[in-house]
Amino acid sequence: MSREQQVLDRIERQRRRRPVVREERITLAHGAGGQATHTLIEAVFLEAFRNPLLAPLDDGALLDLAGARTAFTTDSFVVSPLFFPGGDIGDLAVNGTVNDLAMCGARPVHLSAGFILEEGFPVADLRRITASMAAAARAAEVTIVTGDTKVVERGKADGCYVTTAGVGLVERPVTLSAAGARPGDAVIVSGPIGAHGAAIMLARDDFGIEAPITSDTAPLHGIVDALLEALPEHVRTLRDATRGGVATVLNEVARASEAAVVLHEDAIPVTPEVTGVCELLGLDPLYVACEGRFVAVVDGEHADKALSTIRSHPLGADAALIGTVAPSPAGLVLLRTAFGGTRVVDVLVGDPLPRIC
Amino acid sequence: MSREQQVLDRIERQRRRRPVVREERITLAHGAGGQATHTLIEAVFLEAFRNPLLAPLDDGALLDLAGARTAFTTDSFVVSPLFFPGGDIGDLAVNGTVNDLAMCGARPVHLSAGFILEEGFPVADLRRITASMAAAARAAEVTIVTGDTKVVERGKADGCYVTTAGVGLVERPVTLSAAGARPGDAVIVSGPIGAHGAAIMLARDDFGIEAPITSDTAPLHGIVDALLEALPEHVRTLRDATRGGVATVLNEVARASEAAVVLHEDAIPVTPEVTGVCELLGLDPLYVACEGRFVAVVDGEHADKALSTIRSHPLGADAALIGTVAPSPAGLVLLRTAFGGTRVVDVLVGDPLPRIC
Repeated sequence: MSREQQVLDRIERQRRRRPVVREERITLAHGAGGQATHTLIEAVFLEAFRNPLLAPLDDGALLDLAGARTAFTTDSFVVSPLFFPGGDIGDLAVNGTVNDLAMCGARPVHLSAGFILEEGFPVADLRRITASMAAAARAAEVTIVTGDTKVVERGKADGCYVTTAGVGLVERPVTLSAAGARPGDAVIVSGPIGAHGAAIMLARDDFGIEAPITSDTAPLHGIVDALLEALPEHVRTLRDATRGGVATVLNEVARASEAAVVLHEDAIPVTPEVTGVCELLGLDPLYVACEGRFVAVVDGEHADKALSTIRSHPLGADAALIGTVAPSPAGLVLLRTAFGGTRVVDVLVGDPLPRIC
Repeated sequence: MSREQQVLDRIERQRRRRPVVREERITLAHGAGGQATHTLIEAVFLEAFRNPLLAPLDDGALLDLAGARTAFTTDSFVVSPLFFPGGDIGDLAVNGTVNDLAMCGARPVHLSAGFILEEGFPVADLRRITASMAAAARAAEVTIVTGDTKVVERGKADGCYVTTAGVGLVERPVTLSAAGARPGDAVIVSGPIGAHGAAIMLARDDFGIEAPITSDTAPLHGIVDALLEALPEHVRTLRDATRGGVATVLNEVARASEAAVVLHEDAIPVTPEVTGVCELLGLDPLYVACEGRFVAVVDGEHADKALSTIRSHPLGADAALIGTVAPSPAGLVLLRTAFGGTRVVDVLVGDPLPRIC
């Protein structure tokens, strides 16, 4: 048996196992978006809450509310530091929920915001965050219509945590799902990857590295709207590449679609600055979070039109076709390297980047 | 000028001021539901997010989603301890959001759940919480359809925080609002007050008091449905009496309605156990949180029917008519004491009970 086949077999065996949380206590890896997060979600949350709307584990749930096709989603934000080059926890929280709705093919409409504040948190910082949320909401054409505030004692939080939820309207007859990819489809990323994660790592100042990197946090509803307008019937899957990066998102797609995703390393857009920081920190940009980039899986015959549509939007100018969907090895992501080799891009087990969003 | 008049004038002056947060840093009082919370919400959140749907600051926002009359709400839960007699953070989070939707006159339909977990939190405790959420969701006939999990380092949270958001459908032609009370209306509370807050205080074990008190956490959608079915046109306001208790809720009603609420101390249902604990801790039960009680303001002419309808539901067996709405002093809550006196029941300034929900 070839070495590659052995790797595939091992991954296949792992994945066939019923998900079991073996740890007795929560670790940072459970929040990192990788394998431990998946296992926790499947073995604890999905097990407890099991219902058909939750089961697809897409970025949001699609609901029929008295005939209105609605998308509903939530995200908690614990990013550290709260303020970083290119954004802060406020616009991150608004854009994150706006983007999850957009990935469901919905027009984001209304948001809620729940704040958990630590005693002693500067009111001026809270004002900065709310101002940033308000500006992000205006830019995304959503309104924050309901909220809640709790305060915990010093040492029981880290300044400010924000949980946003959002509702959006699905006004196009689209069906988007991580399970929608088919052999022959094209895989597109809307721009250079990894800037958000790299900006956060630098902002932590643990490394003494300086580089001109700002977070890519941005609302993606406009660019998605343009794509769905141009190709209403040929977009299979949309995913914003947040925690765990493009690699994690594509693993979810490959698994849900029971197909392979084959990436071409040369084609993946990464800025030299992000490449440099990732090399210094020993990270693979494929796993580093973006907060303003998405992956689109589209019918291969319409890949050119999809790419040109995305590129014609200011947030997608550097979009790239990075791979294709193949029938096998089902459930896996493969990377064709610049040197002509192939390696499996698996879901991460540990947590290289805690509290990235 | 009488002493009473002086008090009214002082409160009136205070309230006419533009809300300003004078503190430079967040204090526990900002999360307690009293005056500091109101000021923070008005001066920071409402100021930043200002829009017509948020402005009423009711328990949830009423939305028109493609013709569907929808209610949308969120709450963050930081209760300490996580497990207490009568419930835990899980059913509290589900019931809290279910109840906020019910108070808008909506049938609760779908919930989201965002978890912020502290590194080291026992997985077994998380399973207990999610099982409790699942049971509460079944009891309230809602499904948890979308969620998120974040993990923060040890010492950056307190085990587990949960933020739920919910959507519900407003299927009756009712208009409920804190601003809906009119002179002549009756004020009803659905059962004995203060049990949740008292149970939490005892569970903290700081006081060495033992008393057979369990939290009143419960889903109120069924009892509200019965009330709105019986009196669709005569219910003005529904509020669950959570943080800040019945006194705080009625102050919001009096203020928003520009009317007075006059309570009769003798009529307010409090169990002897809760009365005893409140006396020992120096608390007024009117300010102690309930998580399964609501206040209804109804047309005075239909008060008997409202009361009998509420009492016919298992969760409302001990409901009571506790007061009336009067034209003046507008914006205030007065208490006619058992001894024939009258005192103003103002919004609390400090925080007697941090992290009650």
